Amino acid sequence: MNEPKHPLLASLHDATPLKGFSREQLEATATEIRDVLCNLLATRTAHFASNLGVVELCLALHCEFDFRTDRLIWDTGHQIYPHKLVTGRYDQFPTIRTKGGLMGYPNPHESVYDLFMTGHAGCSVSTAVGLRSGDVVGGQSERRTVAVIGDGAFPSGIVFEAMNNAGELQDDLTIVLNDNKMSICPRVGSVAGYLDRLRSNPFYTGLKSEVVKLLERVPMFGDPTERFLAQLKEGVKAGFLGGMLFEELNIRYIGPIDGHDIGLLRKYLAMVREMKGPVLLHVVTEKGHGYKPAAADPVFFHTPPAFEDRNGEPVTRKSDGLPPYTNHARDAIRDAMASDPKVTVITAAMCQGNKLEPVREQFPDRFFDVGICESHAVAFAAGQCKTGIRPIVDIYSTFLQRSYDQVFQEVSLQDLPVVFMLDRAGLTAPDGPTHHGLYDIGYMRMFPNMVVMAPGYAEEVAPMLQASLAHDHPCSIRYPKASAMQRGTAGEPIEIGKSETLRQGTDGTIVAFGGTLESALMAAESLEGELSIGVVNARFAKPLDIEMVRDVTEDGRFVVTLEEGCKMGGFGSAFLECANEQCLDTRGIRCVALPDHYIQHGERGQLLDENGLSGSAIAETCREMAYRQDAGVGVK
Amino acid sequence: MNEPKHPLLASLHDATPLKGFSREQLEATATEIRDVLCNLLATRTAHFASNLGVVELCLALHCEFDFRTDRLIWDTGHQIYPHKLVTGRYDQFPTIRTKGGLMGYPNPHESVYDLFMTGHAGCSVSTAVGLRSGDVVGGQSERRTVAVIGDGAFPSGIVFEAMNNAGELQDDLTIVLNDNKMSICPRVGSVAGYLDRLRSNPFYTGLKSEVVKLLERVPMFGDPTERFLAQLKEGVKAGFLGGMLFEELNIRYIGPIDGHDIGLLRKYLAMVREMKGPVLLHVVTEKGHGYKPAAADPVFFHTPPAFEDRNGEPVTRKSDGLPPYTNHARDAIRDAMASDPKVTVITAAMCQGNKLEPVREQFPDRFFDVGICESHAVAFAAGQCKTGIRPIVDIYSTFLQRSYDQVFQEVSLQDLPVVFMLDRAGLTAPDGPTHHGLYDIGYMRMFPNMVVMAPGYAEEVAPMLQASLAHDHPCSIRYPKASAMQRGTAGEPIEIGKSETLRQGTDGTIVAFGGTLESALMAAESLEGELSIGVVNARFAKPLDIEMVRDVTEDGRFVVTLEEGCKMGGFGSAFLECANEQCLDTRGIRCVALPDHYIQHGERGQLLDENGLSGSAIAETCREMAYRQDAGVGVK
Repeated sequence: MNEPKHPLLASLHDATPLKGFSREQLEATATEIRDVLCNLLATRTAHFASNLGVVELCLALHCEFDFRTDRLIWDTGHQIYPHKLVTGRYDQFPTIRTKGGLMGYPNPHESVYDLFMTGHAGCSVSTAVGLRSGDVVGGQSERRTVAVIGDGAFPSGIVFEAMNNAGELQDDLTIVLNDNKMSICPRVGSVAGYLDRLRSNPFYTGLKSEVVKLLERVPMFGDPTERFLAQLKEGVKAGFLGGMLFEELNIRYIGPIDGHDIGLLRKYLAMVREMKGPVLLHVVTEKGHGYKPAAADPVFFHTPPAFEDRNGEPVTRKSDGLPPYTNHARDAIRDAMASDPKVTVITAAMCQGNKLEPVREQFPDRFFDVGICESHAVAFAAGQCKTGIRPIVDIYSTFLQRSYDQVFQEVSLQDLPVVFMLDRAGLTAPDGPTHHGLYDIGYMRMFPNMVVMAPGYAEEVAPMLQASLAHDHPCSIRYPKASAMQRGTAGEPIEIGKSETLRQGTDGTIVAFGGTLESALMAAESLEGELSIGVVNARFAKPLDIEMVRDVTEDGRFVVTLEEGCKMGGFGSAFLECANEQCLDTRGIRCVALPDHYIQHGERGQLLDENGLSGSAIAETCREMAYRQDAGVGVK
Repeated sequence: MNEPKHPLLASLHDATPLKGFSREQLEATATEIRDVLCNLLATRTAHFASNLGVVELCLALHCEFDFRTDRLIWDTGHQIYPHKLVTGRYDQFPTIRTKGGLMGYPNPHESVYDLFMTGHAGCSVSTAVGLRSGDVVGGQSERRTVAVIGDGAFPSGIVFEAMNNAGELQDDLTIVLNDNKMSICPRVGSVAGYLDRLRSNPFYTGLKSEVVKLLERVPMFGDPTERFLAQLKEGVKAGFLGGMLFEELNIRYIGPIDGHDIGLLRKYLAMVREMKGPVLLHVVTEKGHGYKPAAADPVFFHTPPAFEDRNGEPVTRKSDGLPPYTNHARDAIRDAMASDPKVTVITAAMCQGNKLEPVREQFPDRFFDVGICESHAVAFAAGQCKTGIRPIVDIYSTFLQRSYDQVFQEVSLQDLPVVFMLDRAGLTAPDGPTHHGLYDIGYMRMFPNMVVMAPGYAEEVAPMLQASLAHDHPCSIRYPKASAMQRGTAGEPIEIGKSETLRQGTDGTIVAFGGTLESALMAAESLEGELSIGVVNARFAKPLDIEMVRDVTEDGRFVVTLEEGCKMGGFGSAFLECANEQCLDTRGIRCVALPDHYIQHGERGQLLDENGLSGSAIAETCREMAYRQDAGVGVK
C-alpha cells in the first residue's frame, strides 16, 4: 500500500481529531497544508498568500472549539482553504474553484463547518453578533461564537457598526483580528497605523512578554483563579496601554500575539473562550508565511497565476489571447488623467485587481485608495466632484452594491458627474456567486440622472470614458472580467443614448448590451446562409436608443436581447419597457439574460453557454425564434 | 410702518452680517430663530427638537466661516432650519415642507449655502473629506471644510470609513460632533457610552475649564504663539485623557464644549479653523433647547404634530381617518412575537417612526435597536436567522438601501428566511426625495430567493407577515406612509405568489400592487356605467401570479398596472417580463408608476395625482386605454 502524500490530512474526516494531536502533529499538519496549497497553486489561479498566513490560526481554532456546533465565520472567506482541508474536504480539495468542485469561499452546502457564504468584506462581526444573539434568544448559549477578520477588511464601516452593537449587547463573542499588515494591496488608512502602533509600542511589548510568561504557566483547563489573574492583568494592561479603540467600545482587547505559534494561539484562544462579553484577540500573521516568495510579495501572491512548483520561480501562464477589458479601462483612465488635471481615480483596495498600479505611479496625487470602504469611496467621490473635480470610481460591480445608498443620495440625487467604471460586471467564473456582478444594470438604471453603458469591444472603452467625462451627469460603464474583442477600428466618439448597428439582417436582430456583442456576432456569422441576422451594439441601457428599439421591433422580425446580467429589471426589461411605451408588439422579442437563481463557480465559457449566452446558444435561440415566427407561434 | 416680527432675521439677506453682530445681537438672533421654529410648529409637522438644539452652533459657524465659499455639510439634514433662516430664506420660511416651498433638508437648488441634499445619516464626513480633497487637487485650498454630524448618526459605518481615510490623508478638515445624547430615539450602542464617558470624566472636566480659561484670554485673531500654546495644551490633554478613539485614528480631538454658549463656540471654531489636519470638535447640545417641553421629551418633539403655540400644551391633530399601515404592521409584529418565542424584531433607530415602543415594552429581550446602522441590522438579522430565530427587520424602504449588499450576500445568497417590513415604501410627501421609498420593488425582486409582496388593505398586513414567517425563504412586505383602506373582511391566509381578484370587468383590468389598490377601486367605481373595469390586488411582485397575468392580458382587454414605486425595473416591468415570457401581446398594457426624475416634497394626495396614481387619474388612463382599444390605435 502506498503511503498517502499527506497522511495527517488524509486521516481527518472532520476536525475533531485535531483536539488530540500533539504540538508536533499539529505542526506536521501545518506543513502538509502548506504543501497542498503550493501544489494547488502549480495548477491554477487561486487565493494563496492569505491562506498560507492562517494555517496555524485555523488549526488552533479547531483545537479549542468544536465548530460543528460552535459558530465560526471567516470574513471575506478567501482564506478558507486550510479550514476546508481539516474539515473533511481534503479528498475533494483538488477540485477547488472548478465547476462542480469545492468553492473558493465558505459554502454551507459543502459542510456543516461553513455557516455563511462570504466573499464581501467586513460582515463577519455583524453575523457573529447575530449568531450569538440568536443562540441567546433560542436558549443555545452553550454554543460559542468566533469571527475571524483580517486587518484589510477591518475598516469596513459595518465592522464599526457591529462593534457599536456588540459593545452594548455584551453577549459572549470572540473576534479574532488576523493582522497580516496587508489588505489585498498594501493596507491604507489610519486604522492600519493604529494597528502598527499596537504592535510596535516597546513598553507594551515588554509587558506582553510578562503576561505571556504568566499564561505559559496557566494549564489549558487549569485553576480558574489563576486564569482569572491572567485575565485581570491582561485587562489592566490593555485598558491602560493598548487597544483603547476597542476598549472604548466596551470590547475587551487582548494581544497582539504571534499567529504562527500554535501553542500560544491555543492558550490565548482557550482563555478568551471563557471570557464574558465581546473580546477581540489581536493575532499577528504573515501573509504568505512558509513560502518565501509569497511572504516577500504578498500582493502578487494574493491570487497568483499558476506556477511551476513551490521551489521554482513563478511562471506567467500563456496569455489566452486578447487583453482584458480591465487593461483597456486602465489605459483609458490613465489617458484621461494625463489630458485633464481635474480627473482623479478612486479605488476601494482594488488597485491590483483593476491593474491601476501604473496610474498610481504616474499620478500619486490624483490616485486615491480608500481601503475596503466602498460606501466612503462613493461619497468621497461625490465630495470631490462638487468642487469641480472629475472623479472616476473604479470598482467591481459586486462591490458597488456596498455603496448603493451613496450612489443614490450622494451622486444620483445631487446629479453629480461621477463616473463609475464597473469592472467584473458579469460572471467572474471561478469565484462564484459572491463575486459575479449581475445586478448593476438593473440597480443603476433605476436611479434618475444615471447613464448606464457598456462597451461591446475594446475600441469603445476609451471613447465611453471620454463621453462620460464630457457629460454633466453621473455615468456608469460596465464590462466583464474577460478579454475584449478588437474590431480594428479607430475608436469613434460615443453619443450618449445612441446604439451602433453592425450588421443588417432580414430575419431578425440581435441587440447585444456590452461584452455579449462578441457572441452575437459569432451567432450571426454562424447562421449565414441559413438566417439573415442583424446585430446591434446597444451601448446604452439608459438612456435606451428608442429609435433603435422601434426600428428593430416594428417591422415584424424577431429580436433577441443579450446581456451578462440578471434578467429581472435588466437590459431586456428596459427594452420591453421601451417597446411597451412605444405601443410596439413585444411577442417577437426574446430576452436572454442570467436566470433568477445563483450561478455557481465554473469556467466562464461553459457558464455562458449553459445560460444561453455563447455564440452557439444564441444561434439556437435565433433558429427557435425564426421557427416560431414562421409557424406563427405566439408571434405577431 | 410695522416693526417686523423678527427684525434681525428679516435684515439678513445672507449670513455675512452675522460676522459683525455683537454677542447680544447673536443671542437675540437665537431667540428670534426659536420663535420662528415654535410658530412654525404650531402650523404643521416638522423636525423640531434637533433644530432648537443647533441654533447657537449654527450662528457661531456662520460667524467664523463664510459658507458661500467655505464648505459646510449638515449631516442627515433635518437640523437645517436655523441655517436656512440666516442664509436668506427667512421670508420663504413659512413655506417649508409644503409643495413648491422650501425643503425640510438642505437643498442646493435653494441656496449656494447648501451643498448636498442630505437626509440619510452619516455621509457628511465622507463628502467633507471628498470636498477637501477636491479643493486640494483643484488648487482651492483656501476654502475651509466643515461637517456637522450628530451623535445619533455617528456610529454609521461610513463615518468610520471616512475617519479611517481622513486620518491618513491629513487634509485640513473640521468635524463638529453635535452631541445631544439622542438619536431620533434614545441613543444606543457603545459609541454612545464612550461619548458619555468623555463628557463625564471629572478629571477631564477639571482640566477643561483651565483650558477654557486660557482660551478666554486668546483674542479672536490673536497672537499665533499664544494660540499655539492653547492648541498644544488641548492636544496634550486630549491625547492623554480623552478622545483616544479619535486620536488613534489620527484625528485631533477637542472638547467637549457647551454648544449653547455662542462666545465659547466661536473661540473654539476659530481655533480649529486654523489647525492642520482633521480635527473633531465635540460640542454638547440639548435637543429641544429653549423650549421646555421639547427638551423634556425630545423623542416626541423630533417631528411633533402641530400644536397650539409655544406656551401651550401640544394638541394632537385630529386624525385624518383610518390608522396607517405602520400601526397594522406594528400590531402584526407584536402578535407574531406573542405567538412564537422565536420571532424577534430589529430596528435601526426607527423605534418611534415604526411605532414599536409597545413592542419594546412587551418583549425587551426580543427587541433590538442597533442604532442608525442599517448594514449591520441586516447582517445581524441573518446571523440570528441562521440559529433558527425568525427575525423581522422593520425598516424604511429608503434606508434599506444602506443594507443593499447585506440583503444580497447575508440574506438572499444564503437563502435565509429574514422578513423585511418596508415602511414608507412610496412617497413620503413632506420629506421629499431623500425619504421617498421608490426603488425597493426593483432592487428586491432582482435577488434570487426573495419574495416581494405588498398589502392592498389593512386586513392583509398580518396574514402577509404570517405567510412570511411560515415561508423558508427571505420575504419583504412593503407599504406606504398612508392610512390603510379597510375592507371589513377577516384577514384570510395569504398564499405566496397568488393574487386576489376583487372586481371583474369586461372592458379592462387594473392590476394594483400594494396601497394603490384603494385608488384602483375608486377609479373602477367612478367609471361604473361608462366602463366595466376589473380590479386585481396583485399582492406579489415576485413571484408574480403568472396565471393572473395570462388571464387579464390574453383576452384582448386592456390592463393598467399600478405601483407606488419607480417605473424602471418595478412591478409593471415585472408584469411586462412575465407577459413577454408567456408570448402575450403587451400592447394593451399600460404601466403607471413614478417617473424617472426625483419627486420633490409636497402633499401626498397631490403628488399621487400628478403622477397618475389618484383615483381620478387612473380613471382617466382607463378611458384613454378604452379609446385606444376601440380606435385600434397601437392595440391588438
